[in-house]
Amino acid sequence: LAKKQFQKIQEKNRMSDQLIPPYNLPDSNRQVILRHRATGIPQAEDFSIEQGHVPAPGDGEMLVRAIYLSVDPAQRGWIVDTNNYSAPVAIGSVMRALAVGVVIRSNHQDFAEGDFLYGWLGWQDYAVIGPEQVLSHIGQPKIALSAYAGVLGLNGLTAYLALSKLGRPKDGETVLVSTSAGAVGSVVGQLAKHWGCRTLGITGSDDKVKQCIDSFGYDAAINYKTAPVAEQLANITEGGVDVYFDNVGGPILDASLRTLNINARVVQCGTASIATWVPLPTGPRNEREILTRRLVWSGFVIFDHADEIPAAREALEKLVKDGHINYLEDIDAGIEHAPGAIASLYAGDNSGKKLIYIGE
Amino acid sequence: LAKKQFQKIQEKNRMSDQLIPPYNLPDSNRQVILRHRATGIPQAEDFSIEQGHVPAPGDGEMLVRAIYLSVDPAQRGWIVDTNNYSAPVAIGSVMRALAVGVVIRSNHQDFAEGDFLYGWLGWQDYAVIGPEQVLSHIGQPKIALSAYAGVLGLNGLTAYLALSKLGRPKDGETVLVSTSAGAVGSVVGQLAKHWGCRTLGITGSDDKVKQCIDSFGYDAAINYKTAPVAEQLANITEGGVDVYFDNVGGPILDASLRTLNINARVVQCGTASIATWVPLPTGPRNEREILTRRLVWSGFVIFDHADEIPAAREALEKLVKDGHINYLEDIDAGIEHAPGAIASLYAGDNSGKKLIYIGE
Repeated sequence: LAKKQFQKIQEKNRMSDQLIPPYNLPDSNRQVILRHRATGIPQAEDFSIEQGHVPAPGDGEMLVRAIYLSVDPAQRGWIVDTNNYSAPVAIGSVMRALAVGVVIRSNHQDFAEGDFLYGWLGWQDYAVIGPEQVLSHIGQPKIALSAYAGVLGLNGLTAYLALSKLGRPKDGETVLVSTSAGAVGSVVGQLAKHWGCRTLGITGSDDKVKQCIDSFGYDAAINYKTAPVAEQLANITEGGVDVYFDNVGGPILDASLRTLNINARVVQCGTASIATWVPLPTGPRNEREILTRRLVWSGFVIFDHADEIPAAREALEKLVKDGHINYLEDIDAGIEHAPGAIASLYAGDNSGKKLIYIGE
Repeated sequence: LAKKQFQKIQEKNRMSDQLIPPYNLPDSNRQVILRHRATGIPQAEDFSIEQGHVPAPGDGEMLVRAIYLSVDPAQRGWIVDTNNYSAPVAIGSVMRALAVGVVIRSNHQDFAEGDFLYGWLGWQDYAVIGPEQVLSHIGQPKIALSAYAGVLGLNGLTAYLALSKLGRPKDGETVLVSTSAGAVGSVVGQLAKHWGCRTLGITGSDDKVKQCIDSFGYDAAINYKTAPVAEQLANITEGGVDVYFDNVGGPILDASLRTLNINARVVQCGTASIATWVPLPTGPRNEREILTRRLVWSGFVIFDHADEIPAAREALEKLVKDGHINYLEDIDAGIEHAPGAIASLYAGDNSGKKLIYIGE
């Protein structure tokens, strides 16, 4: 499975080789526009695809052609207008998104035409951006271009920084990961393994359990859909868990907390299992676990760590190049896949980092 | 109120001046014995008072006369046999407790007869202990003897170490404290104030609100019984809260979490508002708060920090002597008050650190 997917990725990447300057200036710009503010998971019908214009870059700006659009669980949070960590996307505007693209006109001295970059391009063909919207100035890619939107993008960087800074796994410790085959989780598991830990995964299908073991090197993994999580965890967590890296919240989190050793760290990196926070969902009280197990439970948002991204990307790039980190990508071709992509992600239909290729 | 209580304490302390060696060897030992394992809050009828014998100290041990028995919320946890951080007290044995006492026979070179100490004496007149059961070797007290069981004992040390190590308040930040007039909370509030913070308290009566302001220097305090906590907090938390020091858990915790600033710290030091954890109580899910506010939520148990206790006690002793920390004590005289004391504590009947004087 893994090998077949890697081949598919390589084929897709070949398409982007055609994107070498000079380019014709485009005369139309397909844009995915937010139409309704969903309170739950945004569906295809909450968006429309429109023909927008291609703006000219001003002083210090550049015109960038998007190639790989990123689809991220966090996008759901960028749409809702309650209780979040960034201003919500305005109705009628281009959906906020990260993407890998290539500079086709530059009025900024640090960026040359033909440079690749990863940043806030939105779900559209062309974006005019300034350097502050660039997360990674790739230049010319050292590995497959799509990787810069996934394993070297927000997902991999989140895994690297959240695990190293908040999880702080020590050699010989046990690390438990939810969505362990996902774009963040799979990197967390492999980093923890590379750093000398025993790694345990929680995922949502038997195929993904196999993927965890075969592709991502987990020592054990469970499918949370087949039997109660607490029972399944009891079978694989002998000796207890020292770091729990959580991407889901909810009952999986509750069960995982109760496997933790004294002084364990919990990294709260996402809450993907909770479809809506309005009304506020309830669950068992966990404050006694925090106290008696002396947990340190921390929330992680990558954008707090912008200064550390370049060093983290470099470290990850080397680990990927040296074969220490495998990654899976699930790439659809065509912008028409974007509107339904967030819902598809939350349904668990993807296998690996979900991207939309629009570089044709 | 505060002044009157301080006078009462001084009178009580005078009684202990009579406790100077040489002592007669005692021929009986009143002991408070645990009779039933309460799942909720232990009541007077869960204990009995018995006449035990006075054992002779062995090699390296000492015989200690207890003077001030400590009553602590944590004692409830020492009785229940589920989900806790120390082995439960055995049925039929002396109730585990801290106390201040005086050495009346010593077979240990570091402890002289007449030395005062604070340690694991249990609820009884006489205990034979080794040095490993001593938390503080007081020697001769520099301030009122009772203080060594409260503001310089487990409560004050917990406040000092949990706030400084896990809360990490910075000059100019806002610190919110639950049970803000209590034995731990009142010290947390005063330390935070001394370290340059704005301090806010949550307590359970209008008298205690007044005490918070007048005796403990809080900038504002609320009585959680008079109106919804969230509404009351909204009135005093403009600018947000940077450190929440929680001793109660439950709905007060839930409301407090929702006042926190980005990167706030939560110190989980107790869960006194939850009468029982069997069955597991439920509440609103808080993982989204941890994530979006990038909280660091840590559990604190003083016994993990034994190495740091001597330095913390010295720092606190100086702060108390120099008048930077006020404290209130609620002292009953006579061991017959012990069996009902934990229930009384949870009912909020006390005003300040609850002690039982048995040095008569």
